[in-house]
Amino acid sequence: MTPSRAGSSADLLITGCTALVHDDQEQIGFVEDAAIVVRGGVIESVGPAAGTTEFPAAERIDARGQVALPGLINCHTHAPMVALRGVAEDLPAEEWFNDVVWPIESNLTPKDVELGARLACAEMIRGGVTCFADHYFAMDTVAAVTAESGLRAHLGEAYFSSQGPEGRRKSLEFALRHRGGAGGRITTALAPHAPYTVDDTDLAATAELAREHGLPVHLHASESRDQTDNSLARHGVTPIEVLERTGLLGVDAGVLIAHGTGIVERDLPVLERATGPVAVASAPRGYLKFAWPTTPVRALRRIGIDVGLATDGAASNNSLDVWESMALTALVQKSTEGDPRWLTSRQALHHATLQSARAVGLGERIGSLAPGRRADIVLVDVTGPHTQPVHDLAATLVHSARSSDVRTTIVDGRVLMRDRELLTIDLPATVRELGERLPALVDRSHGTRIQEYDKPPE
Amino acid sequence: MTPSRAGSSADLLITGCTALVHDDQEQIGFVEDAAIVVRGGVIESVGPAAGTTEFPAAERIDARGQVALPGLINCHTHAPMVALRGVAEDLPAEEWFNDVVWPIESNLTPKDVELGARLACAEMIRGGVTCFADHYFAMDTVAAVTAESGLRAHLGEAYFSSQGPEGRRKSLEFALRHRGGAGGRITTALAPHAPYTVDDTDLAATAELAREHGLPVHLHASESRDQTDNSLARHGVTPIEVLERTGLLGVDAGVLIAHGTGIVERDLPVLERATGPVAVASAPRGYLKFAWPTTPVRALRRIGIDVGLATDGAASNNSLDVWESMALTALVQKSTEGDPRWLTSRQALHHATLQSARAVGLGERIGSLAPGRRADIVLVDVTGPHTQPVHDLAATLVHSARSSDVRTTIVDGRVLMRDRELLTIDLPATVRELGERLPALVDRSHGTRIQEYDKPPE
Repeated sequence: MTPSRAGSSADLLITGCTALVHDDQEQIGFVEDAAIVVRGGVIESVGPAAGTTEFPAAERIDARGQVALPGLINCHTHAPMVALRGVAEDLPAEEWFNDVVWPIESNLTPKDVELGARLACAEMIRGGVTCFADHYFAMDTVAAVTAESGLRAHLGEAYFSSQGPEGRRKSLEFALRHRGGAGGRITTALAPHAPYTVDDTDLAATAELAREHGLPVHLHASESRDQTDNSLARHGVTPIEVLERTGLLGVDAGVLIAHGTGIVERDLPVLERATGPVAVASAPRGYLKFAWPTTPVRALRRIGIDVGLATDGAASNNSLDVWESMALTALVQKSTEGDPRWLTSRQALHHATLQSARAVGLGERIGSLAPGRRADIVLVDVTGPHTQPVHDLAATLVHSARSSDVRTTIVDGRVLMRDRELLTIDLPATVRELGERLPALVDRSHGTRIQEYDKPPE
Repeated sequence: MTPSRAGSSADLLITGCTALVHDDQEQIGFVEDAAIVVRGGVIESVGPAAGTTEFPAAERIDARGQVALPGLINCHTHAPMVALRGVAEDLPAEEWFNDVVWPIESNLTPKDVELGARLACAEMIRGGVTCFADHYFAMDTVAAVTAESGLRAHLGEAYFSSQGPEGRRKSLEFALRHRGGAGGRITTALAPHAPYTVDDTDLAATAELAREHGLPVHLHASESRDQTDNSLARHGVTPIEVLERTGLLGVDAGVLIAHGTGIVERDLPVLERATGPVAVASAPRGYLKFAWPTTPVRALRRIGIDVGLATDGAASNNSLDVWESMALTALVQKSTEGDPRWLTSRQALHHATLQSARAVGLGERIGSLAPGRRADIVLVDVTGPHTQPVHDLAATLVHSARSSDVRTTIVDGRVLMRDRELLTIDLPATVRELGERLPALVDRSHGTRIQEYDKPPE
């Protein structure tokens, strides 16, 4: 289509790109030599560029040689944990948590969280991420950093039952306080940590609060096969069955399950009969690193569950590179299923776009370059030697392009990075300030930890 | 140490970097604020930068914020196949070969090979690769492109028994003609395709020629478990046992085995009693994509076999990104062995440096930043948000940094890329010329193929 409302000036006009679009069956296609018109933070039109040269716009981007995609969505992360990137390497999950990460996290201050979140936002903007679902502590500071960075975020204040009723209450207060914040770019969730650290009473109360306040829930569940085995040994039910019996699979605004690599056969009918929306966030890099199985994407897709892409925190994943998560999802799924035909590049792009948008409860607002959607757009250079020639653009994007090929990142029509220059974050200052705090942050001489990682029953 | 021969001018002086070095036990360490002095294409010294500010040098690089590494080595590729990047996606190996790649390769002309090789060299220089082991057709043109690009290469003209004695003879002539070419940057190998396409007579004759001429051998063997099973069903021996009985495990200049994902338990004593040097090149990305097992790196290391890093061709791997091969080797090994402690970042860096250098027969000349070694150096920026902060530089390099963080690539002391600008290759012209040839190249209407991929016996 040609840009509508010709004569009135657009806020942003992107021309000359190839645009990734979805048809009404959600099949992925590409419009060549496209123009994207943005007005009021919303995509007004996506179509052939013919006739747009003279179209008036406050800001113009000549995107020849680039592909326009919906911004990537990081469906599960702990953004401030970039401060701990590389601090606990080559360890099994139990030692990683109990001996390094949870002792260090008992030192965390809001200032550490703020600086970590700012560094994380810089990394995500540079990597083409326009929205992230964060599940962490001191989240007021993450909300403030989200606002200043220009990113979109789905935020939840994590809590453990060990905090008493206070934890649950603070998670609710956070969700209500920040819902709709940053000009609507912030959405919120209740964020119990996981079924092994939050008891059934608290989970059931959380489900009740979610229904009462129209909030979604974001939590870890069935992260690994060990967690499933431990839950079965202790309680006779799997973590997914715990979610069902505590009412979390019947929350109208949805539940977002992080990881789910321990989801087993008996969980599938449980998930299938859920009465509220359920999605799973998959962060495949960390599963390889911990020698865990991966999320059973194929089984989940068979029962209609959306699987969004994620990175988890950088302390386990070493980066917040959702582009890499997309490629690894394709690769690891082929390998795990023993089927080179499964999880094609177009399927990977579907996970990265509409499925990820639905996973964070924004399926109607983002995840597609279509009129009426928020203008969360990334422009990706495919002229580099590693992306040439292009025989199949979907394969080029998933298997040859890298997050470093993102040239421009746009959220709500605002350019946050242009030609790889960050426009909203002072990176050197952030790195310097964070660096000064690291010795105190990583000190483990106190011998305490914020929580105990799930161990097999004696 | 301080730069020696003070007073005489160096060819190149790199200052302010952190340099990756090996101790006499091959353990990896880092020298901070290092200076690297290069003279006559050779590293003269690597040591603290103190006192080097006034040191005279024809060319200087201020590498603050960067890490100097030995250039990456791509131990097995088919460089010109970048022309087919993305042409055969989401297919099992048999269809990939028989239905797409081998029909297309019957169209190949030396000009296609030349343009593909040039594009591949651009990609590798940009990704920090300074040496590649290539196994393909029309290799005279690859040798010419290697010379013009400034890269180092280990080249072999591939042949099948279906070509008759001509194939073997041409492979030998190529190896003798180009050995020591491009000012010593080209080394050569005899390059039979694989035990399933080259018969025992030809393999034995190749082993004999290798001994007679002091040449190494580079071939595919035991690429997948299916190939091993097929070989056992047909001949009662594994592909590795074929190498032994044809004398290829007793070649003084060494044998380089590509892939080896089908190496089984009974092959290990065979490899252990080899009387010549044996190395395996591993390209883990493609194995995930074909749903193959991966190279049994841990078992091979136990018997002292070097495992070099590789990408295979871009038609299967989608890129020539050795940096990614390094990260995937660490990740996939942890996952496959079920052991998060196995294949640490330092081990991955050891594969990327000394083991890869030995795999291509250059263990004394490259693979380490040490006095007397050829000056094949890459400078990697670790100031990006995705590589900060640095708690463990080895982990930063393997798990957070990307090939796109390579700023500068140097071979034999000559700068081939500086601050990401390619200095020896005209990329736009190469992409344009190659693009014009693609319709003819990918035409499969002729219904022929260059060879038949190994199918299970009827």
